[in-house]
Amino acid sequence: MKHYLLAPGPTPVPARVLLAMAQPIIHHRTPQFSQIFAEAKEGLKWLFQTSQDVLMLAASGTGAMEAAVTNLFSPGEEVLVINGGKFGERWAKISGRYGLKVHELRVEWGKAVQPEAVAQTLERHSQIRGVLVQASETSTTVCHPVPEIAALTRQRDTLLIVDGITAVGVYDLPMDRLGIDVLVAGSQKALMLPPGLAFIALSERAWERVKTAQLPRFYFDLAKERENLTKDTTAWTPAISLIVGLREALAMLREEGLDQAFARQARQAAATRAAANALGLQLVAPDHPSPAATGIFVPAQVPGGKLVAYLRDRMGVTFAGGQDQFKGKIVRIAHLGFIDSFDTIVAIGALEMALRKFGCAVELGRGVGAAQQVLMAGLPE
Amino acid sequence: MKHYLLAPGPTPVPARVLLAMAQPIIHHRTPQFSQIFAEAKEGLKWLFQTSQDVLMLAASGTGAMEAAVTNLFSPGEEVLVINGGKFGERWAKISGRYGLKVHELRVEWGKAVQPEAVAQTLERHSQIRGVLVQASETSTTVCHPVPEIAALTRQRDTLLIVDGITAVGVYDLPMDRLGIDVLVAGSQKALMLPPGLAFIALSERAWERVKTAQLPRFYFDLAKERENLTKDTTAWTPAISLIVGLREALAMLREEGLDQAFARQARQAAATRAAANALGLQLVAPDHPSPAATGIFVPAQVPGGKLVAYLRDRMGVTFAGGQDQFKGKIVRIAHLGFIDSFDTIVAIGALEMALRKFGCAVELGRGVGAAQQVLMAGLPE
Repeated sequence: MKHYLLAPGPTPVPARVLLAMAQPIIHHRTPQFSQIFAEAKEGLKWLFQTSQDVLMLAASGTGAMEAAVTNLFSPGEEVLVINGGKFGERWAKISGRYGLKVHELRVEWGKAVQPEAVAQTLERHSQIRGVLVQASETSTTVCHPVPEIAALTRQRDTLLIVDGITAVGVYDLPMDRLGIDVLVAGSQKALMLPPGLAFIALSERAWERVKTAQLPRFYFDLAKERENLTKDTTAWTPAISLIVGLREALAMLREEGLDQAFARQARQAAATRAAANALGLQLVAPDHPSPAATGIFVPAQVPGGKLVAYLRDRMGVTFAGGQDQFKGKIVRIAHLGFIDSFDTIVAIGALEMALRKFGCAVELGRGVGAAQQVLMAGLPE
Repeated sequence: MKHYLLAPGPTPVPARVLLAMAQPIIHHRTPQFSQIFAEAKEGLKWLFQTSQDVLMLAASGTGAMEAAVTNLFSPGEEVLVINGGKFGERWAKISGRYGLKVHELRVEWGKAVQPEAVAQTLERHSQIRGVLVQASETSTTVCHPVPEIAALTRQRDTLLIVDGITAVGVYDLPMDRLGIDVLVAGSQKALMLPPGLAFIALSERAWERVKTAQLPRFYFDLAKERENLTKDTTAWTPAISLIVGLREALAMLREEGLDQAFARQARQAAATRAAANALGLQLVAPDHPSPAATGIFVPAQVPGGKLVAYLRDRMGVTFAGGQDQFKGKIVRIAHLGFIDSFDTIVAIGALEMALRKFGCAVELGRGVGAAQQVLMAGLPE
């Protein structure tokens, strides 16, 4: 059985990156490694669309989320968390664990936050020193309106801290231009790497805030990381092979072009939505869908968990299922990273066949045809 | 751009085989190598369904074809070549080059030879000492009726020499049971390996013939190879990494089971034919199609060579085009080797989109749906 990894992280790693990582390990306190590190560092600035340093942490994305909280706030400070899914909830948990006063703006799962609601909360609570949000909420496949929220935070002494783990490299999220203060990303998403690296960049005013932020941190000491970054190294032992792979993945993305990569991933998402519509399936996020992944409700009579397990274990196609309130109710099909038109065709083809196997009267090929129609736009001359 | 290798050889190599071959090279005159060699040797007997030795040559399939001719005949001897395609023609060329008297039974491209025609030729020319045929003629995607021809040759002093390069491991071709005298295979087909190894097995009476065969041979001296095989080695330096990979590929095939592998490949072929029919496309070999690959005529207004190039260079999907009289007129989609249902869905999806791009009014998803219908039969409970 062949295996198709179509979950929103980890994502498939290209052979070119695997081969780079398969080279013998080198030592990290050497000019050889520093050269690789320097190239990766430059590539990340390009990817983040920032003139700021992008720090590399040996951690999963959650580590960088924690770093964002502990490096920017002091005990008892107030933050606003946009909580419309598992990852919004995580911002609230981290902030709470470190003793911040958390204002939660709860958003129905599958919906994006309304910028007006953010504006009202900021007006009501003038002490809020940071807004924490997901650019792409992976659990509900929703995009929150980061540009609109940034327009609010830019005007006051409130930092905008964005979890871009399934957004950076997926769609246009120019850090400097929008005025994002902290942007977080992870290796196992659009960057086409195995998990194990997290990335974080801070704006000028965020770096100012770091100087006074009193929350405790040691491993995730961003000022210390930044100091090391200027010397083309890291504070602690870096995940060497992953950084070697990162350089290669960034080279691939540069060759493709950022706009082309955005368009490619957006096209997979649009094709998947078209397929779901053609098959009469309901989208989880019809209004503000993320291009990183598409959530689709399974028909009521189908046990979603079993469907996902069947696809994975018997058909070799790994989607993500739903979490918490969506458990057993949805499938999530990924578009981010090293994923192209034929992955989407496989995804829809497999979903159709699996639904048939589970007794649904879907017409085989109907969803695929609708997806192909959208994907035709991506064909070169 | 991702790449999908769907030509009838070379075929995709599974990661498990690639990883086996990526191990550091070992020396071939060692107990370590002989152990690997011995396992591969046993596996090949299982694959060929023979109690005879299966020799491994560092060569492409054509080398083993030449070995079949030079080890079994003497100058001026008469052979009957079934020539219904590029590979039938190759039997004639090799036999002619070595000074055999070649009787050619020409078969229209896309058709299988009629066993009666073989019988008549053998009757008319009682001096014919061998029949040379393809079990699967890759250029026309036809299966010649080897069992029926074997029923004729078994009864007389005429050897049946079968090019099984795209047949062994693809469909049931039990060498001993049918009475095939010489069976040839190659590594880059059902065996899921890179090119570079060829295999050949001889029946008892073929080995008898070797003793008197006078054609010149040195590198392809099968008696010498057989002598070395008993000592778990080869006459000349073996293609070490390929034999390491061969052991792994055979292990994979054994885990799957030969009948299951035959059924999997036959299902891809049936699904592809169903798709072609649903799209109103003509099959090259409607009557005796090979499960190794399916030839499909492109619509008259489409330049087939450009279509194949577009699929390969702009869509990342490599089919084979047509050769000689079929040049520019057909595409050939492979089913043999490490190919499964989603490869077929990709193949048909890509073909539909490419045909649309070239101005054909095919309905997107229609062929895919027809293929899925057939492939549903392969889904486990």
